[in-house]
Amino acid sequence: MTYCVAMCLSDGLVFASDSRTNAGVDHIATFKKLHVIHRDKDRVLVLQSAGNLATTQSIVSLLETRMRSDSEPNLLQVSTLYDAATLVGATLREVIDRDSRMQQHASTTNFGCNLLLGGQIAGEAPRLFHIYPEGNFIEATRDTPYFQIGESKYGKPIIDRVLTRETTLEQAMCCALISIDSTLRSNLSVGLPLDVMIYRADSFDDSGQRRVTEDDPYFATIRKAWSEGLQNTFRQLPPFSL
Amino acid sequence: MTYCVAMCLSDGLVFASDSRTNAGVDHIATFKKLHVIHRDKDRVLVLQSAGNLATTQSIVSLLETRMRSDSEPNLLQVSTLYDAATLVGATLREVIDRDSRMQQHASTTNFGCNLLLGGQIAGEAPRLFHIYPEGNFIEATRDTPYFQIGESKYGKPIIDRVLTRETTLEQAMCCALISIDSTLRSNLSVGLPLDVMIYRADSFDDSGQRRVTEDDPYFATIRKAWSEGLQNTFRQLPPFSL
Repeated sequence: MTYCVAMCLSDGLVFASDSRTNAGVDHIATFKKLHVIHRDKDRVLVLQSAGNLATTQSIVSLLETRMRSDSEPNLLQVSTLYDAATLVGATLREVIDRDSRMQQHASTTNFGCNLLLGGQIAGEAPRLFHIYPEGNFIEATRDTPYFQIGESKYGKPIIDRVLTRETTLEQAMCCALISIDSTLRSNLSVGLPLDVMIYRADSFDDSGQRRVTEDDPYFATIRKAWSEGLQNTFRQLPPFSL
Repeated sequence: MTYCVAMCLSDGLVFASDSRTNAGVDHIATFKKLHVIHRDKDRVLVLQSAGNLATTQSIVSLLETRMRSDSEPNLLQVSTLYDAATLVGATLREVIDRDSRMQQHASTTNFGCNLLLGGQIAGEAPRLFHIYPEGNFIEATRDTPYFQIGESKYGKPIIDRVLTRETTLEQAMCCALISIDSTLRSNLSVGLPLDVMIYRADSFDDSGQRRVTEDDPYFATIRKAWSEGLQNTFRQLPPFSL
């Protein structure tokens, strides 16, 4: 399983992904699920993935390979994030179609995946898309400024309670990390390290990336403070009486 | 969908259930999912249900009808909660077997349900069981003093953070209501009113029941205080910095 969250806010974009993949509880590995494409002063694209690892790796490989060829449509050519989402969706369909057609027998294997694609291309504001296993997609709006993929339920309530479009990027990343912490505690198939990125609108800068490990002092501080804060808040609630 | 939670603590048992059932978003109704069987000074049994409503209603009807007959094994005859769970599991299998065999064609209908059975029978301590759609069951222990059925993920993190076996019944009910509140906010198929019950160990008293509606002053108070407490806690966390 996986948990990825991305937020599209007034100041820019926030991304956070876990890195655990598993095929059964005894086949666990670490794979980065956050991929960044950057061309100076022109575009920053961030792709997060959840689902079949063979599918998501192939999509990323094909997208990257094609960026080195001028003869094929690729992510360095598109002029809007919408066109980028269309291209990623088409690549997703291509991979799933290829891999599922190769099956000699009817198979119950799920080749599907969900992707989050966020970023900015010069001439546009930052945008964020959720691309479905069918290759179609939806875009984040002012009303719904964030998307989650993978094991999303445990970490959803905290985001719904605190995130608005005007939340600062630094607070939003704190919220994303708390959301992931709630998920880590409840689901073993979501695991550290985390890959996170802050993208400030109009910066066209991809340097806001960081890997958050088990002993990251900031993550440890907010996990502890959040847990204690929840417990203090709970202790102050009036007990039920009939 | 549904959300039910039950807790088996040092002081007794706590139960809370929503009441929404739905077959599609345009077919929503209110059904009580918490059923109490009581015989003075001898037994209190509480059954909560999630899943196919036809199945769960039939199980409750059969269990209640058979309590009025001395010739059939019933919940007034069993001498342990374990035997009660066995009987409920057998009734569950009987109903699912009956209804799924009646299908003339292969059907994708899910006749299954999950049940929580808690209570006390004279001679034993209070106990709590989770009965699966297969009719088998597990029992709550000191390490895992609570069970959830239905839409359980949104409301799990808060329980994991605050509940211990030594939590008082009144605090535990507060925790259960907060857990349900988190679920209500995230999933439309879980809805008010709630049916809740506190059972104090060795009381053999079923009077600790209450229906919690939208305008219940206690529920409104803790929802507001919890939401504000979370937001205050969040505001005090240090923002992320790269």
